[in-house]
Amino acid sequence: MKRDEFRFVLPIQTRWIDNDVYGHVNNVVYYAYFDTVINRWLIDEGGLDIFGKAPLEGDDRRDVIGVCAESQCTYVHSASFPDDLAAGLRVAKIGTSSVTYEVAVFHGETLCAHGRFVHVFVDRRTRKPTPIPKAIRDALDRIASR
Amino acid sequence: MKRDEFRFVLPIQTRWIDNDVYGHVNNVVYYAYFDTVINRWLIDEGGLDIFGKAPLEGDDRRDVIGVCAESQCTYVHSASFPDDLAAGLRVAKIGTSSVTYEVAVFHGETLCAHGRFVHVFVDRRTRKPTPIPKAIRDALDRIASR
Amino acid sequence: MKRDEFRFVLPIQTRWIDNDVYGHVNNVVYYAYFDTVINRWLIDEGGLDIFGKAPLEGDDRRDVIGVCAESQCTYVHSASFPDDLAAGLRVAKIGTSSVTYEVAVFHGETLCAHGRFVHVFVDRRTRKPTPIPKAIRDALDRIASR
Amino acid sequence: MKRDEFRFVLPIQTRWIDNDVYGHVNNVVYYAYFDTVINRWLIDEGGLDIFGKAPLEGDDRRDVIGVCAESQCTYVHSASFPDDLAAGLRVAKIGTSSVTYEVAVFHGETLCAHGRFVHVFVDRRTRKPTPIPKAIRDALDRIASR
Repeated sequence: MKRDEFRFVLPIQTRWIDNDVYGHVNNVVYYAYFDTVINRWLIDEGGLDIFGKAPLEGDDRRDVIGVCAESQCTYVHSASFPDDLAAGLRVAKIGTSSVTYEVAVFHGETLCAHGRFVHVFVDRRTRKPTPIPKAIRDALDRIASR
Repeated sequence: MKRDEFRFVLPIQTRWIDNDVYGHVNNVVYYAYFDTVINRWLIDEGGLDIFGKAPLEGDDRRDVIGVCAESQCTYVHSASFPDDLAAGLRVAKIGTSSVTYEVAVFHGETLCAHGRFVHVFVDRRTRKPTPIPKAIRDALDRIASR
Repeated sequence: MKRDEFRFVLPIQTRWIDNDVYGHVNNVVYYAYFDTVINRWLIDEGGLDIFGKAPLEGDDRRDVIGVCAESQCTYVHSASFPDDLAAGLRVAKIGTSSVTYEVAVFHGETLCAHGRFVHVFVDRRTRKPTPIPKAIRDALDRIASR
Repeated sequence: MKRDEFRFVLPIQTRWIDNDVYGHVNNVVYYAYFDTVINRWLIDEGGLDIFGKAPLEGDDRRDVIGVCAESQCTYVHSASFPDDLAAGLRVAKIGTSSVTYEVAVFHGETLCAHGRFVHVFVDRRTRKPTPIPKAIRDALDRIASR
């Protein structure tokens, strides 16, 4: 798995608190990186409105949020603060209301960890699954695996 | 999956900061619960010495740490601070130097999330895999799935 | 500063991830304990509605949230996961829309850290300061320093 | 308080998990930013060896760590993921074994929060205060307030 296999790569800044007692980025923290790269794509490219403040009537993005249904990570090589890392993101599968991402974290060209993350898009209030809004689906299509 | 299928169940105290912008415990935080229930068992029952300070010569636990090789979580039902939760732990598989745990998080009798976590025991300095120390293996055997 | 000087004391469960690379609970994490003991009191005793879902018309608690204006902590003695800690809470000063808490974290009878935390109560939407709702003020009065 | 009053300014990447239920970066998280900007300066400019692995005999940096004795933060303006922030650092006071930093977090030119942080340098093993190593003191002098 290589960086250039990912259509979107976000630099990830490590923090002092990311290191655990064993001197490396704790396994839990990689999922915080996953959440960050995924939501950055959804917000920046798909217009996901995480605060529900979008002003437009009839914009379905205002009422839709993505909740995590499953996540998984395989740890290959440890990293540590103050390393500068990068997170690659691509879309493995898109359904009506859910999407499966593949994410990988690199230190330079070294693969540190890779995993998958499933988002189900739901209505903000009822939390029932809802079709993925078009603008978000278009953004997801742009980083689909081929 | 029910609480009484787990031989070790640790109460989990939620924190204000566990809730994310969608008002529920963030997906990432469940892995912090996993790490906590697993290490509590290893420390309390197996004598894992996370600080490497054990005084006894010849005690192999001093030089061994568990690092995460893989983790996974399926999210079933959301929970929120200030809920009081519980994490169940059992061992699905023990090898020479690695162990696969099954973990589940409950709110009352409601299953919120369940997953697996693979620990590889390594030498603290070289980070090479090493056989699981006997005291730790005995503790793991006590919570093996049957 | 002693435990019995605090009218509300909440047990605090440490987590694996609380320990930093120096093997003790990271300084940042104490503030997560502060947030937790304060909000537990406000929710359990004052009926603070952090999700804005209270059903009653005319209940001013629904529209009020507490935001942090200042916090401070002095670190006296280190603690580490898996220590069981306790957080003491008392109210040093109550104004029209703000309150200053004193918080202390203990390991057994040993004082680990102590600090202060200022909450300003604001309208959930406008984020403008608003008088503290009566039920919350009553709860705060019950743990006022004398 | 303005950005250009700080001699070292580190870009800070927000994370999804930084936002709390009220939709802004949680008060606790600012301290994680403080820890990060301070340790980046100490490591990059002062050669602080957080892992104790420095190979050179007689290099006093190997045996010295900085522990937090006090921290404080005043919150002025809220920020939210995915904002790009910046943390400014300067040194207010240097003693024999302790240093007081002033830290401020900005969103663009807007001041979000500012505070102070006191590090005491101690021996890694005994945790007794020890004089600040020369290379670290020199680095601190370079960002002293005038």
